[in-house]
Amino acid sequence: MFFCVPTIISNTFSIKSTIFYFSLSLTFLYPLNIIYSQNTDKQAFVIKSFYDEALEKQYSYQWLEFLSEKIGGRIAGSPQSLAAVEFTHQVLDSLGADTVWNQACEIDYWYRGKAEVVRLVGHAEYGDRTLRALALGGSGASPNGGLTGEVIEFKSLDEARAAGPKIKDKIVYFSRPFDNKFFKTFHAYGSAVDQRAYGPNLASKLGAKACIIRSMTGRMDTFPHTGGTLWEDGVKPIPALAISTIDAAFLTEAIRKSPAKIYVETHCENRGKKISYSVIAEIKGSEKPDEIILVGGHLDSWDVGGGAHDDGAGCVHSMEVFSILKNLKYKPRRTLRCVLFMNEENGLAGGRTYAEISNKNGEYHFAAIESDAGGFTPLGFGFDADTAFVKKYSSYFSQWDELLSPYGLKLNKGGGGADIGPLKSQKGILFGLSPDSQRYFDYHHTAQDRIYTVHPRELALGSAAMASLVYLLDQIP
Amino acid sequence: MFFCVPTIISNTFSIKSTIFYFSLSLTFLYPLNIIYSQNTDKQAFVIKSFYDEALEKQYSYQWLEFLSEKIGGRIAGSPQSLAAVEFTHQVLDSLGADTVWNQACEIDYWYRGKAEVVRLVGHAEYGDRTLRALALGGSGASPNGGLTGEVIEFKSLDEARAAGPKIKDKIVYFSRPFDNKFFKTFHAYGSAVDQRAYGPNLASKLGAKACIIRSMTGRMDTFPHTGGTLWEDGVKPIPALAISTIDAAFLTEAIRKSPAKIYVETHCENRGKKISYSVIAEIKGSEKPDEIILVGGHLDSWDVGGGAHDDGAGCVHSMEVFSILKNLKYKPRRTLRCVLFMNEENGLAGGRTYAEISNKNGEYHFAAIESDAGGFTPLGFGFDADTAFVKKYSSYFSQWDELLSPYGLKLNKGGGGADIGPLKSQKGILFGLSPDSQRYFDYHHTAQDRIYTVHPRELALGSAAMASLVYLLDQIP
Repeated sequence: MFFCVPTIISNTFSIKSTIFYFSLSLTFLYPLNIIYSQNTDKQAFVIKSFYDEALEKQYSYQWLEFLSEKIGGRIAGSPQSLAAVEFTHQVLDSLGADTVWNQACEIDYWYRGKAEVVRLVGHAEYGDRTLRALALGGSGASPNGGLTGEVIEFKSLDEARAAGPKIKDKIVYFSRPFDNKFFKTFHAYGSAVDQRAYGPNLASKLGAKACIIRSMTGRMDTFPHTGGTLWEDGVKPIPALAISTIDAAFLTEAIRKSPAKIYVETHCENRGKKISYSVIAEIKGSEKPDEIILVGGHLDSWDVGGGAHDDGAGCVHSMEVFSILKNLKYKPRRTLRCVLFMNEENGLAGGRTYAEISNKNGEYHFAAIESDAGGFTPLGFGFDADTAFVKKYSSYFSQWDELLSPYGLKLNKGGGGADIGPLKSQKGILFGLSPDSQRYFDYHHTAQDRIYTVHPRELALGSAAMASLVYLLDQIP
Repeated sequence: MFFCVPTIISNTFSIKSTIFYFSLSLTFLYPLNIIYSQNTDKQAFVIKSFYDEALEKQYSYQWLEFLSEKIGGRIAGSPQSLAAVEFTHQVLDSLGADTVWNQACEIDYWYRGKAEVVRLVGHAEYGDRTLRALALGGSGASPNGGLTGEVIEFKSLDEARAAGPKIKDKIVYFSRPFDNKFFKTFHAYGSAVDQRAYGPNLASKLGAKACIIRSMTGRMDTFPHTGGTLWEDGVKPIPALAISTIDAAFLTEAIRKSPAKIYVETHCENRGKKISYSVIAEIKGSEKPDEIILVGGHLDSWDVGGGAHDDGAGCVHSMEVFSILKNLKYKPRRTLRCVLFMNEENGLAGGRTYAEISNKNGEYHFAAIESDAGGFTPLGFGFDADTAFVKKYSSYFSQWDELLSPYGLKLNKGGGGADIGPLKSQKGILFGLSPDSQRYFDYHHTAQDRIYTVHPRELALGSAAMASLVYLLDQIP
C-alpha cells in the first residue's frame, strides 16, 4: 500500500470520532466523574480517553517485560512466583490504590527438576532419535536411570479404554492433532486437550509405564507444550510428557513402519504444600462500596518461558485498568478490585481461596472480568450471568454496542475465567476478555511465551477494553 | 490458561455451528451450486466450507513464502517483478481458471542502486554517527562523493513553507511522529504520510539539497521505512530518505543540542519506461457473464524485504479465493476475475491500465474487492458504492451480518483500494479487506516485510473472508 489517505481514512474516521479526537485535551481539564452521565456521547468521550491513555503510555508492556524477562516462568511455589507477587504488589502500590494486600493460599509445588528426555531407541528404520519434550505439570518421575517401553498409539481416550489390558507395561501415546478447521483456536484446544488432561491418568490406571501426548497446538514446529495433567486420588503419577508436533508426526510415522520403543527420563517432584499469595488492590466505591467490580488475571505461569501471554498479559491488563482510571482521575461509584490470582495453572488455589473468603465476608461481586486468553488484539468479551441479573440490567448492555464496536469489541454469551468461576454463586456477572485467538497456541505453555511475541499496542488495547467495560458497569445506576 | 473447555467452548460453539460442523463432510458429496439459495442456513454452510478449506489447506502461506522468500522484493520494472508475474501466472493456471493472461502496462523503473548513506558529521556532542536510512522511491541521486549540509527540522509542511528562503542549501528534516493514540494505525499513517509524499518535493522547490523524513511507523526501532515520494513536473528529485524512528529521535536530540550537519549519499536512478504486466485469471459466469466480480491485490512491492504483507498477502488471498471456489466446485453465476496489479507502489500503472481497457471493452464490474492492508486477522470490509447501487442491493447486504459476524467480519462504509479505485466510474461496488491493523506499520515498506511476520492462519482467514464475500455477491439475484 502506498497511501491510504483518501480511502482508508474515510473508512472509519467519522465526523463524530473526529470531534472526539480533537476535543480530547478537555479530558484533562476536569475529573472524569464530572462528566458522569448516561449520555452516550459523553461515555464515548470517556472511553476514547481510556484508549488514548493506554495507547500512548503502554505501561502494560513495560510491566510485562519485567514479569516475563526479569522474573520469567513462575509456577506456583517457585521463587519466581514470589518475585512476581512482590513486583506486582509494588506496582499496584505505586498506582495509588486505596489498599493493596497479599491473600495467602495453600498450593502444591510441582517441580520439574532436571531436563526430561524422550528418545526413540533401536528403531528398525530410524535407530535412535531424541524427541523434543516437556514433562507435563503433575508428571511423576521415572525410575533412576529412566525407563524404556514399547509405544502404543491412540487417537482418543476411548480407543485407549477399549484397548484395556494391552496397555500394561507400555508407553501410551495420544496423538490426535488439533483440528485446524475450527475458526477459534480455543475450540481446537478444547477438542484435543482431554488427551493431556486425562490421558496420563487413564494410562496409569491401565498399567502403562509412561504417557506421551502430542503438543496442544495447530502449528507444526519443534516446541513442546507443557500443561497440567490430572490424577485421580490413588492413581500413581507416571511420567507424562508432551512432544512437539513435528516429533509427534515423526513418531506416528515411525510406529507405522515398525514397532517403536521409547526411553523416557523425568525428574519431577511434588515438593508438597507451600503458602503462596494472590495480590489484591482495591479502590473503594464512592456510592455503592458494597458492590465490587473485579478485574484480574493469574500471576503464576508454567516454569518454562516467561508466561507473557499466559497470563502475564492478564495481570498487566488488570493493573493498567487501575493505572488508566487513576491517571484520568476517575472516581468509581462501586468498589474496584484488581486481583492477580496465584496457581491457576495447576490447582486454582488462588481463585478458590478468594471466593471462599469473599463469601465468608458476605461480599457481593457485581461483576468480575478476567483476562486469560493472551495479549492479542481484543475482539470483545464473553459473559455469563444469572438470569435475574440479565433481566435487571440487559437494557444497559444493549446501549454498549454503539460504544464498544468502534474499538472492535462485541459482547457474546458464554465466558468468564477459571479464577473468577468460583464467584458465580454470588450471582453477579462474569466476563472473559476475548482477544484474537489465532496465534495463542503458537506460544501457550512453551519456552516461546516471551515478551517478543507480544505487541505493545495489542496489549494496551486489552487494558483499554477492560477499563471501558469497568467504566460502563460502574455507570449502571 | 489451563483449560478452557467449559467456559470458552460454550462461548461461541453454538448448537447451530455444531450442526454445520458435523455435517460438513456433505459438502464434498455434491457441487456447492446445488445448494445455491438465498436461504441463510445454506449460505452459512457454504461459508463454513470455505473457511474449512482455507484453514486446512493454507495454500496462501505456501505461495506467499515463494513470493516473499524465493522471489523477494519486486519493485515494478525489476527482474523480480517479472518473476512474480511468471510465478503467479503459473499458479493461477494450475487452479483451473478458464483463462489466465498478462495485461501489459507501462511503468517507470526506479532503481535504488548502491546502498544509501546518512551520517551525522562533526557534531559538537556526538561527533560522527551513521543513521539507518533508506532512500524513498523516486529519490534522486546525490552528486558523486555525496553531499553535506546543515539540517533544518520541521514538524509539518506548513512550518517548512513558512520558513521559505531559510531552507536554501539546507537538508530538510521532517520529524513529526505517528500519533499512537489513533486506534487504527492507518489513521496514524494518514496523519503523518504527507511528510513523505510531499515533503521532498516542497524541500526541492525551496532549494534544499536533500530531504530526510522520520520513518512512517509508531514503533521505536531501527528499521527505516521506504515508500513513494511525489515530484511535481519540473521539480528536481533531490536525495530523499527515511531514517529509522530511533535514529530520528536521536537526530532531533542532536539538533536540539547543537547545529547538526549531515552527509547524504544516494545512488538512485530512474531507469525509464519499461513494459510490465498485471496478471489476470477469469472464470466465466454461468448466468450473468457480463457482470464481473473482481478480487485483487498488487504484485509489485518495494525493493527491500519480501513484500509479504504489502502486498504479497493480497495476491495470495485473491489466488486462494479461486482455489477455494474451484476445489469446492462452486460454479459462479457472474464472471469472476483475479487481478494481480503491477506498480501500485510507485505509479499505479496496472490499476489505471486495467480500468482503461475495461472501459474501452464496455465491461461492467458489479463488484471489486481489493486486499492491500496486510495478511493479519480480517475484521471486515470497507465499501464504497454508487448511491443507486446501494439503494438497489442494500436489502441483501443487511442479511450478511448474521453470516459474516461469526467470523469476526463487519461491513463498514468507506473502503476500496488504490488499484480498483479507477473502476469506480463503472458504478458497481468497491470493497477493501480490513485486517487488524495493529502490526502493519511494524513491517510496512521495510526489510522486515518477510514471511516470518505472517501467520498462516491469519492469512488463510483473509482468503476465506474474500471468498465468502464473492459468494454472497454472486448470490444476489
